[in-house]
Amino acid sequence: MKKPLRPIRWNGKALACLDQRLLPFREKWITCRDAGQVARVIVEMVVRGAPLIGITAAYGVALEARKYRAESTDRFTTRILRAIDRLAGTRPTAVNLFWALRAMKAAVLGSSGLSSDRRAVLIEREARFIHAEDEALCAAIGCHGASLLKGCRDILTHCNTGALATGGEGTALAAILRAHRANRRLHVWVDETRPYLQGARLTAFELHHAGVRFDLITDNMAAYWMGKRRVDAVIVGADRIAANGDTANKIGTYSIAVLARAHGIPFYVAAPTSTFDLSIPHGGRIPIEERSPREVTHARDVPVTCPDYPARNPSFDVTPGKWIRAIVCEHGIVRPPYPAGLRRMAGKGNA
Amino acid sequence: MKKPLRPIRWNGKALACLDQRLLPFREKWITCRDAGQVARVIVEMVVRGAPLIGITAAYGVALEARKYRAESTDRFTTRILRAIDRLAGTRPTAVNLFWALRAMKAAVLGSSGLSSDRRAVLIEREARFIHAEDEALCAAIGCHGASLLKGCRDILTHCNTGALATGGEGTALAAILRAHRANRRLHVWVDETRPYLQGARLTAFELHHAGVRFDLITDNMAAYWMGKRRVDAVIVGADRIAANGDTANKIGTYSIAVLARAHGIPFYVAAPTSTFDLSIPHGGRIPIEERSPREVTHARDVPVTCPDYPARNPSFDVTPGKWIRAIVCEHGIVRPPYPAGLRRMAGKGNA
Repeated sequence: MKKPLRPIRWNGKALACLDQRLLPFREKWITCRDAGQVARVIVEMVVRGAPLIGITAAYGVALEARKYRAESTDRFTTRILRAIDRLAGTRPTAVNLFWALRAMKAAVLGSSGLSSDRRAVLIEREARFIHAEDEALCAAIGCHGASLLKGCRDILTHCNTGALATGGEGTALAAILRAHRANRRLHVWVDETRPYLQGARLTAFELHHAGVRFDLITDNMAAYWMGKRRVDAVIVGADRIAANGDTANKIGTYSIAVLARAHGIPFYVAAPTSTFDLSIPHGGRIPIEERSPREVTHARDVPVTCPDYPARNPSFDVTPGKWIRAIVCEHGIVRPPYPAGLRRMAGKGNA
Repeated sequence: MKKPLRPIRWNGKALACLDQRLLPFREKWITCRDAGQVARVIVEMVVRGAPLIGITAAYGVALEARKYRAESTDRFTTRILRAIDRLAGTRPTAVNLFWALRAMKAAVLGSSGLSSDRRAVLIEREARFIHAEDEALCAAIGCHGASLLKGCRDILTHCNTGALATGGEGTALAAILRAHRANRRLHVWVDETRPYLQGARLTAFELHHAGVRFDLITDNMAAYWMGKRRVDAVIVGADRIAANGDTANKIGTYSIAVLARAHGIPFYVAAPTSTFDLSIPHGGRIPIEERSPREVTHARDVPVTCPDYPARNPSFDVTPGKWIRAIVCEHGIVRPPYPAGLRRMAGKGNA
C-alpha cells in the first residue's frame, strides 16, 4: 500500500507543512518552529481546508508552549494565550479553527497548577489528540461511504475533500479511496472545479498519489459522461447541512445534483456531524458568500478574459436535501427523511 | 448605434483580418495581399468560425485574381486554381470552406472567355456575394431568434456564435443583439466555455463591444442562476442538427439543456439550414470529436494541473431534439415535431 498523503508532519519539535499553493507542480515543505510561523502559513494559504487549519493552529500553540517551557508559569500562560489570539485572527470565518483553539485554551488554563515544562507536554498532547480525532473521523466517514460505493465502476466527485483538507484521508475522497482498495478497477471523474480549480490541482494530485485511476474533466463535461452511462455514483463533501438535508457546498455541486437526478444516478454527501447546522430549517437560510470576480476572470492568476469585464462569483450553492440519496457522517449513513435522521446522528456525538 | 463588429475588412485591394488569438486582450489587424497570406491566417487561426473561414478563403481567391489580372488568360487560370487548392488544404474539416471555394472555382472557370482583368472583377464580386449572403443569413436568424426572446430579462448563452465566427452578426448571438436593441435592459449570462474559453474570450468581447449588459460565469454556475430564477431563456448555436432535431454543439451544451429542462426554462438553438444534416436520423449517429487532453489540463496554455495527468476532452455533445423548445434558422422558427419542420425549412433553401 502506498504511503498515505499527509499535508502536515509533526516531529515533537517542529511542524512541517506541505505548501499547497504549489501543488501539483511542486512539493515544497515549510517548517514552522513557533506560533508566529504557523500563523503565517495559515494566512498565506500554505495549508487550507477547514479541519486542517484547526489542527495546524493547535500545533502552533504546542510549538509556542515548547518554546517557553522554561519560563515561569505566569509568563508561560501570558505567552501562550497571546499566541492563541494571534492564531485565532488568521482566518476569521473558519469554524474548526475556533473550535480547536478553544480546546487548546482549555488545556493551557486547566494545567496552570503544573510546571511550565509539564504543561508544554500536556498542551502538545492535546494538539496531537485533535489531530488523531480528525483522522479517526475521516476513517469512519470513509468506511461508511465506501459501503455506498460498492459495485460502482465510475464515480464522479467535485472540489477537494481529501487528505489535503483534513487530518486524515478526508470525507468524500476517503470513501473513494476505500472503495478503490476494495476494487482496484475503480475509476474517478474529477471535475476541475472552476474557478479555483481545487479538483484539477488537489484532487487529481491525491488520486495520482494513491494510484487511483482517474480522468480530469472540465465541469461542463460531467453531463456528457452521465449521458454515456459512465457515471455510477456522485459523492461530494459539504460546508454546511441544514436540518432538512439541504447542503451548502462548493459552487457547481447543485449543478451536478440536478444532472445526477435527471440521469437517475445516486448523489451522496459525505461530511462530519460538525457540519450539521440543525438550527437552520432549510438551505434558503444558508448565506452564500460571493467572492471576487477576479477568480472568474482569471485561471491560476492568468486572465481568461479582459480583467475589467463584469463577472459573478457565488462561491457555494445549496443542493436540496430531497435530491440527496444519502448523507454519510462519522456515525453512519443517514437516508431521507432527513430531519429525524440528522438529529439522531448529531445526538450520537453528544452521547 | 455602435459600429458593428467586423472581424475581416475588404477594401478591394487587401483583406485586413482581426487577430482573434489575441482577443479580448489586444486588437491587432493582419493585412493580406495574396492567397498565400490568407491561407496563413486561416491555418494559424487568426480567423476562426466555419462561415468566416469560407468567406476569408473566398477573398483570398479574389486577391490572387487581382494580383495576376495582367497575366494571359491561361496563366491566370492556372495561378488561381493553384491558389484555390492551397486554400482548400488549410482546414481539412471545414464544410463552409469547401462550399465557398467551389463557388469561387465556378466563377473562375465560368469567366474563362473574358480578359483576365475583367475576370478579376467578376471573381471579386463572387467573394463579396458570398460575404453578403452570410450577412443576410445572420440577419434573418437574428430577426427570427429575437422574436423568441421577447420579454426576457436574462438570457444565458454558451460558446461563441457571433460576428467573430460569421460574415454578419452571428446566429444565437445575433438573436441576443437584436433582442437587446428592443430592450436595452436585457442581461446576458456568458458561460466561459471551458476548455477553450470561447465564451470568456470572444462572446464577452462581442457583448462588451455592442454595449450589452452581461456577466461572465464559470460553466458550473449556470445552474445556480437558473435556481435563483435569473435565467429566462437559453439560446445556443449548432454544429450539426439531425433529422429529429438532435443537435451537436460545443461541449457543455447538453449539460445546460438538462439544467434548463429541470428548471422549466426554454432552450433554443439558432443555426442556418446548412447545419441541418437530414441524412442522419438521430444524434446517436453524429460522431463526436475528442480533442487533445492538453486543452483540459491547461487554460490559455497555462497548466491547471500536472500536464501528464490523464484527462478526457470530448469537444462536442448532442442535445436531444425533444428538449429543444424551438430551432431558429434563416427561414423562420421550427417547433417540434422536428422531422417534418426541419424538412420543410431545408426545402425552402432549394425552392
